[in-house]
Amino acid sequence: MSAPTESQTRSAAEAGGLYAEVQQFYARHMHLLDEGAAELWAESFTQDASFSVPTLPAPVVGRAGLSAAVRRSAAALVEAGEQHRHWPGVFDVVPQQDGSVIVHSYTTVFATVRGGESRVHRVCTCTDVLVREGGSLLVRSRRVDRDDLR
Amino acid sequence: MSAPTESQTRSAAEAGGLYAEVQQFYARHMHLLDEGAAELWAESFTQDASFSVPTLPAPVVGRAGLSAAVRRSAAALVEAGEQHRHWPGVFDVVPQQDGSVIVHSYTTVFATVRGGESRVHRVCTCTDVLVREGGSLLVRSRRVDRDDLR
Amino acid sequence: MSAPTESQTRSAAEAGGLYAEVQQFYARHMHLLDEGAAELWAESFTQDASFSVPTLPAPVVGRAGLSAAVRRSAAALVEAGEQHRHWPGVFDVVPQQDGSVIVHSYTTVFATVRGGESRVHRVCTCTDVLVREGGSLLVRSRRVDRDDLR
Repeated sequence: MSAPTESQTRSAAEAGGLYAEVQQFYARHMHLLDEGAAELWAESFTQDASFSVPTLPAPVVGRAGLSAAVRRSAAALVEAGEQHRHWPGVFDVVPQQDGSVIVHSYTTVFATVRGGESRVHRVCTCTDVLVREGGSLLVRSRRVDRDDLR
Repeated sequence: MSAPTESQTRSAAEAGGLYAEVQQFYARHMHLLDEGAAELWAESFTQDASFSVPTLPAPVVGRAGLSAAVRRSAAALVEAGEQHRHWPGVFDVVPQQDGSVIVHSYTTVFATVRGGESRVHRVCTCTDVLVREGGSLLVRSRRVDRDDLR
Repeated sequence: MSAPTESQTRSAAEAGGLYAEVQQFYARHMHLLDEGAAELWAESFTQDASFSVPTLPAPVVGRAGLSAAVRRSAAALVEAGEQHRHWPGVFDVVPQQDGSVIVHSYTTVFATVRGGESRVHRVCTCTDVLVREGGSLLVRSRRVDRDDLR
């Protein structure tokens, strides 16, 4: 085993910069989602982004459809007296030649009843294609799968 | 979409350095907490740190009060035959002009009965102000909220 | 409180590079495990790696034994109609003088019944010694402990 060279260290730091940027991106993204900040959350997607989930017959495309879906979910949670927390992690970050970044991750959704218990609501896998626009990462496409529906 | 410039890459690596440092900070901090290492845990706070939780009428201020609270919790867990794991994550790290760092995060507490089942005990949100003293990050103030008490 | 110097920033970025590399390593490692990709998973260990768990009287040593254990677990999960997700985190990363890296972490295993509920299956702690071979991190030894068996 040998110590890393200076060039390897620099390259690891640069890769580490992207890895941290991806984690920061998902953190703010999920905080917005769980606060029901539908429009701000939708701005983490490109204008023409596509979002596929197993419970819909076709992908949701575009920010207006995405934010509408979050507004509906947020209203249903208020009605139910539940707080959801989307917890993304276990990020496998794969930079592509064209500058986009494929991210394979897990997302666990924790649910808590106000005045009551917390539980694991869902365990999902997520494959995103992130692109950079104006210096920021945005989701161009997302594919979510649920472990209970496999 | 364009590839990042060299300067953007360097800046992302530096931001990534802080992001990783924050994650490392919380990891050791929570390991100490879950081991019941009350004094070492309290040393991750500044001398005059303030810790607010919804179940106390006023913030706990200072390391002596913080470590005393952890000693009480640790003794109660031993009595109950339970192991808790504080799992911090989904870090939204916001560096401030004055060198402090605001960190918005989630913390899930997993509980396991010896010889029994594991469960989600609590889901919390946490807003910390971190400052740098002698090269190390320390918590100057913490505000914890519990999803079940919203 | 003072702002970090340029040298501190560079050093944090380099440490951040290692921290991110460790997270990326565990992410791919656990994705392979949960997909049942036993041979590829075993290649994240050194040839002579040692894996200790409380439920076995002696450590498993070497890739053949490791991949055989994963094949058995994967078959049992298919039989049971369950999907497990190994979620590593709360990484305390401690670089050693000889270039190896000790990583203290937590791992939660989430289990989901197809067509049914999700739950916390296990909460574990994990201490790994990682070494670098041919530029890549590999596990040379692993010690897993389960919170329910303490």
